Amino acid sequence: MLTNDQLNHWDRENFLHPSTHFGQHGRGESPTRIVTTAKGCYIEDRDGTKLLDAFAGLYCVNVGYGRTEIAEAISKQAHELAYYHSYVGHGTEASITLAHMVAERAPAHMNKVYFGLGGSDANETNVKLVWYIQNVLGRPEKRKIISRWRGYHGSGLITGSMTGLVPFHNKFGLPMSEVVHTEAPYYFRRADPDMSEEAFSAHCAAKLEELIEREGADTIGAFIAEPLLGTGGIVPPPAGYWDAIQPVLRKHDILLITDEVVTGFGRMGTMMGSTHYGITPDIITIAKGLTSAYAPLSGSIVSDELYKVLEDGTDKFGPFGHGWTYSAHPIGAAAGVANLKLIDELGLVQNARETGAYFRNAMAAALKDHRFVGDARGDGMLAAVELQRDPGARVDFDASEKVTAQVVGEMVKRGVIARAMPQGEIIGFAPPLCMTPAEADKVVEVTRDALDAVTGTL
Amino acid sequence: MLTNDQLNHWDRENFLHPSTHFGQHGRGESPTRIVTTAKGCYIEDRDGTKLLDAFAGLYCVNVGYGRTEIAEAISKQAHELAYYHSYVGHGTEASITLAHMVAERAPAHMNKVYFGLGGSDANETNVKLVWYIQNVLGRPEKRKIISRWRGYHGSGLITGSMTGLVPFHNKFGLPMSEVVHTEAPYYFRRADPDMSEEAFSAHCAAKLEELIEREGADTIGAFIAEPLLGTGGIVPPPAGYWDAIQPVLRKHDILLITDEVVTGFGRMGTMMGSTHYGITPDIITIAKGLTSAYAPLSGSIVSDELYKVLEDGTDKFGPFGHGWTYSAHPIGAAAGVANLKLIDELGLVQNARETGAYFRNAMAAALKDHRFVGDARGDGMLAAVELQRDPGARVDFDASEKVTAQVVGEMVKRGVIARAMPQGEIIGFAPPLCMTPAEADKVVEVTRDALDAVTGTL
Ligand SMILES: Cc1ncc(COP(=O)(O)O)c(C=O)c1O
Ligand SMILES: Cc1ncc(COP(=O)(O)O)c(C=O)c1O
Repeated sequence: MLTNDQLNHWDRENFLHPSTHFGQHGRGESPTRIVTTAKGCYIEDRDGTKLLDAFAGLYCVNVGYGRTEIAEAISKQAHELAYYHSYVGHGTEASITLAHMVAERAPAHMNKVYFGLGGSDANETNVKLVWYIQNVLGRPEKRKIISRWRGYHGSGLITGSMTGLVPFHNKFGLPMSEVVHTEAPYYFRRADPDMSEEAFSAHCAAKLEELIEREGADTIGAFIAEPLLGTGGIVPPPAGYWDAIQPVLRKHDILLITDEVVTGFGRMGTMMGSTHYGITPDIITIAKGLTSAYAPLSGSIVSDELYKVLEDGTDKFGPFGHGWTYSAHPIGAAAGVANLKLIDELGLVQNARETGAYFRNAMAAALKDHRFVGDARGDGMLAAVELQRDPGARVDFDASEKVTAQVVGEMVKRGVIARAMPQGEIIGFAPPLCMTPAEADKVVEVTRDALDAVTGTL
Repeated sequence: MLTNDQLNHWDRENFLHPSTHFGQHGRGESPTRIVTTAKGCYIEDRDGTKLLDAFAGLYCVNVGYGRTEIAEAISKQAHELAYYHSYVGHGTEASITLAHMVAERAPAHMNKVYFGLGGSDANETNVKLVWYIQNVLGRPEKRKIISRWRGYHGSGLITGSMTGLVPFHNKFGLPMSEVVHTEAPYYFRRADPDMSEEAFSAHCAAKLEELIEREGADTIGAFIAEPLLGTGGIVPPPAGYWDAIQPVLRKHDILLITDEVVTGFGRMGTMMGSTHYGITPDIITIAKGLTSAYAPLSGSIVSDELYKVLEDGTDKFGPFGHGWTYSAHPIGAAAGVANLKLIDELGLVQNARETGAYFRNAMAAALKDHRFVGDARGDGMLAAVELQRDPGARVDFDASEKVTAQVVGEMVKRGVIARAMPQGEIIGFAPPLCMTPAEADKVVEVTRDALDAVTGTL
């Protein structure tokens, strides 16, 4: 085994980590953590520290860590056939089986799946699908994508543009001009505190229509949205939101992509988030929950109606010129099959619903009257606590105080990982779907203690 | 085990394969192949057909199939820790070790690596790096990317735009305006047959400079190129090409990205293709050879000089807002470590050089005087045979005759997989680096037989 010193040296010298302060990391000024093993909701590092991971990695280890069934499926596939490509009709038993299992779990009108690696590249595929489809339909100028401020759809050039969060645009010269943003359905931050949820939803739909008319409906190809805002703050849609939005899209012939990278395969306490919120999408993005992150795999699920256009397109123009070398990678496909089976066998969708509700209620009960808590919200196995300097007066903390980062740091000292969401003062929770009520209690207790420790002196 | 009928049904009903004619696949009109296992240079399918894979998947299974050492490393990692993220300084022993191993194998002036999943997303990261770096350097308008006609850099929106092949642009409305293309260094297709290689290289450099001046050097951020054209036709650079190109880039302060997704880690008979051709890049893209495709993993290697700008950037503006959930995925990292070790232990770089030369010489000897062979070329363990109706008169086959597709089809009947390259009449070969001379002989023999079978009637 390599020494910690050796690894630490290489880490600082050679490894550019994502979302990291390169200068501080390289100079050894910021902490690192080398994770060695994990089981259930707990991860363990090289120093022997054990932490309850209430964010399931990056809300992706949905079945929990250390599932032997998935590890065995990966191992078996690696020994039998680690790789062959899936171009021009090639497949493996696992990739074909998984395509079928995904179709079974998708809304009834969606039966075709294209496999990628991660959520970003799946959304990249989706935009290519939209541009191709609009071309085949003879309206190539319907090309712009509308996404929402505070949406998260990836970190690429167009996908990072669709992401509506400033830290992912800054200094990259994003968003690109193909993407335009509409208002976030963030009821907590509505301008008029007296507005009802339904009225706010109607306001969001009106704003969307205003944008479409300003840009010209004939220039808009698709609208992309998470069923509930995830990385933007874990914000469930206000009442009536999706019922107000969808008619606007239909009226202007704009395709609807629901990005279910977080919500797909159980996190909302239902198999898919689209169904949960009464959404009828044309394309669904899936990733994280598809394999519980045991191996990289993502996908784009396409409606039967759009598939007809794809069929027509290839009949007219030949093969679809799109693919990644690792599309439908056998290891990812094997992990996906084992993972979806496990979700069923362990009843994790139900546990996400029930223990998720228990967790959110406990969190709200413990924190909603805290003098620095503006909002305690969530849905399914997702929760968020939003901090404010003075909730009654709707006054925020100054970002420079880094209150949330401090709270999350104090939580780690107490053995629990939560996430300081990237924009705003929001503590995010997305535990494995197998979390128990006792673990939920611990997360709530540590959150309150850490919040008190940080804010006790304020 | 599922029946072939059941799998065939699901495949047609639910699976959208890359680069596939969706209509024909869905209706059951085009063949499929379900691959079950593989060993060395051979793959085997569910019908018991065994094929010598002279394209190593998609030139990626460099160490050959069925390597127990890599399967074991994947299995061990899957059991110990299938996933934890690598954001904000998190890592695993495998990911840190691999970062170090990559730096050891990269040119001496390059020591930092950022990990992604596939070649396309690595190039996506590279463009983000360029835009960020030019921003930090105070010249945000240096943003356009120059790539080459016939280059291949991926299948995304910007990466597919950088790809300079028509089948990847058509009907998607690509290339996007951020990408401009310069002439392919395709000596075989030079306008003036009497031009020397050196003169043609100077011509390519002049064309590049013309483009830069037309667009304005202050609008060009980077030039991206494969050391040798891969998917565009397996075309080694003409003599003097890189010596002519690099001064033009330096003169106009344009960063150089070499895309070593194919050439990295041994395929040229040297560890890196940049070194092989005397290229000094600012950023190198790696993927395929990094893990020999046993698990998805790619990377962006950054020069020390550019790293200083990144350090400065994060000191001024905070953490680098970029990342994929599966960046530096533990399974991919474990596969990468085992794969790079195996390449050394088995002496595969040397075998790529020696057996590669043997293979190319044998192919040229067998085919260069064939009446339909215009060119037989290659370098390292890469070869191509370009077909023409009348090589002496430089007359091409008509694309509608599908001559290459037929030859490749006849080769499969004779037990060997080669690739009909996507643009032009070019048979491509990129065998595993462990190919033996006897296997090389078989590939050559089958190629000639298949070519004769198809062209015998012409
Ligand atoms: C809703 C959503 N879409 C897309 C992505 C991007 O996925 P990836 O990081 O795998 O590229 C994420 C990642 O957090 C996400 O939450
Ligand atoms: C040189 C080069 N760059 C990039 C890519 C894209 O890699 P991927 O298919 O893994 O996205 C390829 C794939 O063939 C390639 O050959």
